Amino acid sequence: MTLTITPLPQIPLIFPGDNLADLLITSLQTARITLEDGDILVVTQKIVSKAEGRLVNLATITPSKEALELAKKSEKDPRLVEIILQESNEVLRVRPGTIIVEHKLGFICASAGIDHSNVRVEGGTPENWVSLLPENPDNSALEIRRRIKVSTGARIGVLIIDSHGRAWRLGTIGTAIGISGLPAIVDERGWQDLYGYRLKITMVAAADELAGAAALVMGEAAEGIPAVHVRGFPHPLREGSLKELIRPKGNDLFR
Amino acid sequence: MTLTITPLPQIPLIFPGDNLADLLITSLQTARITLEDGDILVVTQKIVSKAEGRLVNLATITPSKEALELAKKSEKDPRLVEIILQESNEVLRVRPGTIIVEHKLGFICASAGIDHSNVRVEGGTPENWVSLLPENPDNSALEIRRRIKVSTGARIGVLIIDSHGRAWRLGTIGTAIGISGLPAIVDERGWQDLYGYRLKITMVAAADELAGAAALVMGEAAEGIPAVHVRGFPHPLREGSLKELIRPKGNDLFR
Repeated sequence: MTLTITPLPQIPLIFPGDNLADLLITSLQTARITLEDGDILVVTQKIVSKAEGRLVNLATITPSKEALELAKKSEKDPRLVEIILQESNEVLRVRPGTIIVEHKLGFICASAGIDHSNVRVEGGTPENWVSLLPENPDNSALEIRRRIKVSTGARIGVLIIDSHGRAWRLGTIGTAIGISGLPAIVDERGWQDLYGYRLKITMVAAADELAGAAALVMGEAAEGIPAVHVRGFPHPLREGSLKELIRPKGNDLFR
Repeated sequence: MTLTITPLPQIPLIFPGDNLADLLITSLQTARITLEDGDILVVTQKIVSKAEGRLVNLATITPSKEALELAKKSEKDPRLVEIILQESNEVLRVRPGTIIVEHKLGFICASAGIDHSNVRVEGGTPENWVSLLPENPDNSALEIRRRIKVSTGARIGVLIIDSHGRAWRLGTIGTAIGISGLPAIVDERGWQDLYGYRLKITMVAAADELAGAAALVMGEAAEGIPAVHVRGFPHPLREGSLKELIRPKGNDLFR
């Protein structure tokens, strides 16, 4: 079956309190897409964060001593570093321009997913505002999914993504940070290959693969496509969670 | 523009010497897809490796002393370990069941990309045969692309992918290992966001994002879909290479 990923048009700038589900439904109508059971909507963390009011004005932040030290090492704004620390379980690596942390949500990322881009609050100067990740992205996805079910009757999956750097390879890729109604991992252990050879390790991070596909269509900030519609996801939908994707620390050879 | 990823039907089992370009063209005809300029074909490393005869019979391998030691630590077949070492620049991590290396091609992966699945040679027992990665996957992709250009006139991109594990996250994702005629990295540094804020870091690993999307459609071995057709790749095609994706060792905080 063909997988199709369609950019959702005319999603307006998002402000705290906006109802993303309604905006997505309006955009789907504009695109003349009628949701079907099994479809998936993928949205960027940025619009979810903004709708949820996860915005901080740096002018209100007083950096701790730890933040001041880390700011020196990383050559970053101490107030930004303070928020990064508040959003993290652990700092893994620091060098000028880069702070890699374990986010409170459990995954590893740069700057705790906090950034400046595409953030504006009425009356504020953009430079002072940053967005944090949604407090509980699985729940955020579930909430959008529920509202869309109520409005349209469609049983869909909702995936919230961000752009993450990686160890070993250059460039960012779209990565799942919130999941509702689709599998994060598809476990194919025990399946047999074409010759009956039993596959040993085949845990596929299907949600991350879809996140990459969606990010490809969204492009980056300049284009401003914050949501896409997916049809033809090749695995049965089920409840799913970000937690499936997080490698336990003790099982990670690279941290 | 909608991105569509379509599985290519009825690709037969591949044996050394097979002409993949011809087989892909036949499959496209079966699927009633007429290639257009800007389309991309994504194929698994496995069928490229098999067509190129990158198969080794473990019965012919005598493990070195180093391989014997590493086999003990990793609890793997010493003959397999010998080939892993031959295919690698450096061993990064070892534990029972796992050997993570820098492949001779420059990227980090488990077992140097060598595996047993879906490998069979006429007259051989499957258990004894393993496949290595293509010797030069960028060239392999270029060769397929050239032949398809000659046969169909279409200017396409060709991407060869494998399934890679990651640091920090569970599950494998489709990952680019050979690239011809499409960008591996799309460099958006210096672009501005919706509010004119200059993006600092936006090197997007577009080829890896596409690799994930393609792998999602291919599924894993049991289904045996080794190639997909892509239309709507959102970036201009250009020459590209795996080399763009490899993070220089000195610039890698996690090895």
